[in-house]
Amino acid sequence: MTDTLAPNPGAAPGPGIEGSLAGWARTIAPSALREILPMLTRPGLLSFALGMPAAELLPGEAYVQATRRVLDGGALPLQYGVPHAALKRQIVEMMAERGVDCTEEQVFLTTGAQQGMSLLARLLLEQGGQVAVEAAVYDGIHAAVRPQSPQILTVPSDAEGIDVDALEAMLEAGARPAFVYVIPDGHNPLGVSMSLERRVRLAELARRWEVPLVEDDAYGFLRYDDAALPALRAIDPEWVLYVGSFSKIFAPGVRVGWIVAPQALVSILSILKHGSDLDVTTTAQRTLSAFLDAGALPEHLARVRAEYRARRDAMLAAMEHCFPKSVSWTVPQAGMFVWVTLPPGKDAVELLRRAVDEEQVAFVPGAAFCAHDPGQAARCMRLCFASMPVERIEEGIARLGRLLGGTIRIGAVPLV
Amino acid sequence: MTDTLAPNPGAAPGPGIEGSLAGWARTIAPSALREILPMLTRPGLLSFALGMPAAELLPGEAYVQATRRVLDGGALPLQYGVPHAALKRQIVEMMAERGVDCTEEQVFLTTGAQQGMSLLARLLLEQGGQVAVEAAVYDGIHAAVRPQSPQILTVPSDAEGIDVDALEAMLEAGARPAFVYVIPDGHNPLGVSMSLERRVRLAELARRWEVPLVEDDAYGFLRYDDAALPALRAIDPEWVLYVGSFSKIFAPGVRVGWIVAPQALVSILSILKHGSDLDVTTTAQRTLSAFLDAGALPEHLARVRAEYRARRDAMLAAMEHCFPKSVSWTVPQAGMFVWVTLPPGKDAVELLRRAVDEEQVAFVPGAAFCAHDPGQAARCMRLCFASMPVERIEEGIARLGRLLGGTIRIGAVPLV
Repeated sequence: MTDTLAPNPGAAPGPGIEGSLAGWARTIAPSALREILPMLTRPGLLSFALGMPAAELLPGEAYVQATRRVLDGGALPLQYGVPHAALKRQIVEMMAERGVDCTEEQVFLTTGAQQGMSLLARLLLEQGGQVAVEAAVYDGIHAAVRPQSPQILTVPSDAEGIDVDALEAMLEAGARPAFVYVIPDGHNPLGVSMSLERRVRLAELARRWEVPLVEDDAYGFLRYDDAALPALRAIDPEWVLYVGSFSKIFAPGVRVGWIVAPQALVSILSILKHGSDLDVTTTAQRTLSAFLDAGALPEHLARVRAEYRARRDAMLAAMEHCFPKSVSWTVPQAGMFVWVTLPPGKDAVELLRRAVDEEQVAFVPGAAFCAHDPGQAARCMRLCFASMPVERIEEGIARLGRLLGGTIRIGAVPLV
Repeated sequence: MTDTLAPNPGAAPGPGIEGSLAGWARTIAPSALREILPMLTRPGLLSFALGMPAAELLPGEAYVQATRRVLDGGALPLQYGVPHAALKRQIVEMMAERGVDCTEEQVFLTTGAQQGMSLLARLLLEQGGQVAVEAAVYDGIHAAVRPQSPQILTVPSDAEGIDVDALEAMLEAGARPAFVYVIPDGHNPLGVSMSLERRVRLAELARRWEVPLVEDDAYGFLRYDDAALPALRAIDPEWVLYVGSFSKIFAPGVRVGWIVAPQALVSILSILKHGSDLDVTTTAQRTLSAFLDAGALPEHLARVRAEYRARRDAMLAAMEHCFPKSVSWTVPQAGMFVWVTLPPGKDAVELLRRAVDEEQVAFVPGAAFCAHDPGQAARCMRLCFASMPVERIEEGIARLGRLLGGTIRIGAVPLV
């Protein structure tokens, strides 16, 4: 009960309307990430914490131009509307870069990738059903499945991605998850990308056991080194449901993402979405389409990739230079994150408190990405290399290095 | 299985991924309204069917100006962001017009009113729980609660709104709905507004039985005659959860709505929404706020109200003139709809087929708004008076009158 209810003179004592919540909502708690948020957003911090695109790289000028083109186009996108067909066609073209051959009818527009995950969870997951995720994983998937109060099955990961042997053993032992959630490229928070062999084996497992894969490809267009490996959906167009996002390659503020799925599922998703929020913001669909139509994406992506690559390299070099030998980390080929493992006995939450208080540096402790007991992840931390320019990255890593008692050195071998 | 899966050579026969859907999703069917949609959207129809704001009254110029102000403001709303505080303050001011005294902390921004309903359903409704709605009601509430596979309890309505005696009898007989969904002003599809006495009794019932009311006020700002009656939330700020929408008073395309709820529930809604789609489109929040900041809403609302009032009056007069005495209808004080009851034995779906084929006129048959057996609603139709200008309304009603075998007459008394 809050003091905002004070004006109501007849308010009875007792739980009031809070006693009317659905059972699962009564026990709901903010995610670990949201709980430490105030610590992470203290002003003046050098922050490796939040996975936000670099503000200075957001396509402001291109956005302004696209918006003006929409406004000048006459027919303003203010009415209720069916999904914008031109945008679907543009996404079909973009998917070719991920190796995916699909049709407009298989593309479903969503209010960001988070809605894609939420709708797929509702599509596939029974109340109290099973869902398989990696032990350390983007906390948004936990938020998406929570209303169904599922049993979370956790699968370990290594430097090539989700451990398919462990997954197979789980399936052989009788587990029947409604789906397996994976992030094949630029994993959040692990920073790893799945090997091609791993992708093929995972798709085979999905088909053999008839378990759908939900592929979160938020970072698949942000690859820094070799040519991109194909998305899982390119390997199996039936059992893989692909979730895409414009948040990291255009701007989070437009809230537009997409699903690529078999057409029969798209029509059910459409009914589900109608009950959730009717349409994707029409103005955002049109602005994005105008941006893509102007051919502005390739140039923007090239700029973002080059800058993020430089930031990643700066972070890796600074860690080599400043962290003790007992600390290891992943070397991301894509995405925005490095996963750092501290020596046994270290606790990343405790380190975060000291980092914020003593060195004004922030990161997200590994435990924030775990549904259950964090295990090894308790001594891990996620560092985002995308948000800050190189000098600030170097300064932040130097400060963390001081806390970790590092001595400047050369030649450590990255470990996962 | 669709031919879009043909490229996959390994596709096994059998249900494939469609066999992996959650139970409720496997039985999902488009709403009745969506099924007749193709009939309703045939080109060249005079259509009273869809509840869309009049395109020519959408605030295009004000939208352009607001968007340009946001663009010129410098800091583009492209990043992830917390809900826009200025917009919440503006909503607090707007709520005073509905008699509601609330604080910013009680205002929760949503991706349109539909998301408001969907989130409240997830907040309050257990899987398989009960929910109470009127027998004929906006089909979006059915879509919002469907994932919880609830038991739908239906309550009759009369010219003053939901039948509170029937609701009370239901509660006394042991029904315990997670919430009661009501549309106190400009009811969709019934076109009625609740009397003040009815509002007070309903709020008393909610408090006595500790049953939350979800108040859908999409049309509360579109009142045409006397001063508006207070929203239910003004009568009871604890048990009433208010859902507001900018779709009918600004534009559906921005997909912005709001909930007014006790502050303790707002924090849970925020966690729920985070799992659903993270944020409301930031660009839409800012544009709307700039529109409100320019003071453009009162003038826009006055224009819309005057025009919709004229259209309503034209429809009522044309029905008096053209429909047989055996046909009755509601006289809306607010909103966009008139509910027409045909003589016993008539079937509105059959009439729709003839209306579309023979007279190129469309409406929504009453059965589309019913969860169960439509009963009386099978001979009812919903006419939207907002979408077409007066001449087309008069022409459309004259055509329907021909089909109904009406003779031109004077002085029929409207019935509910």
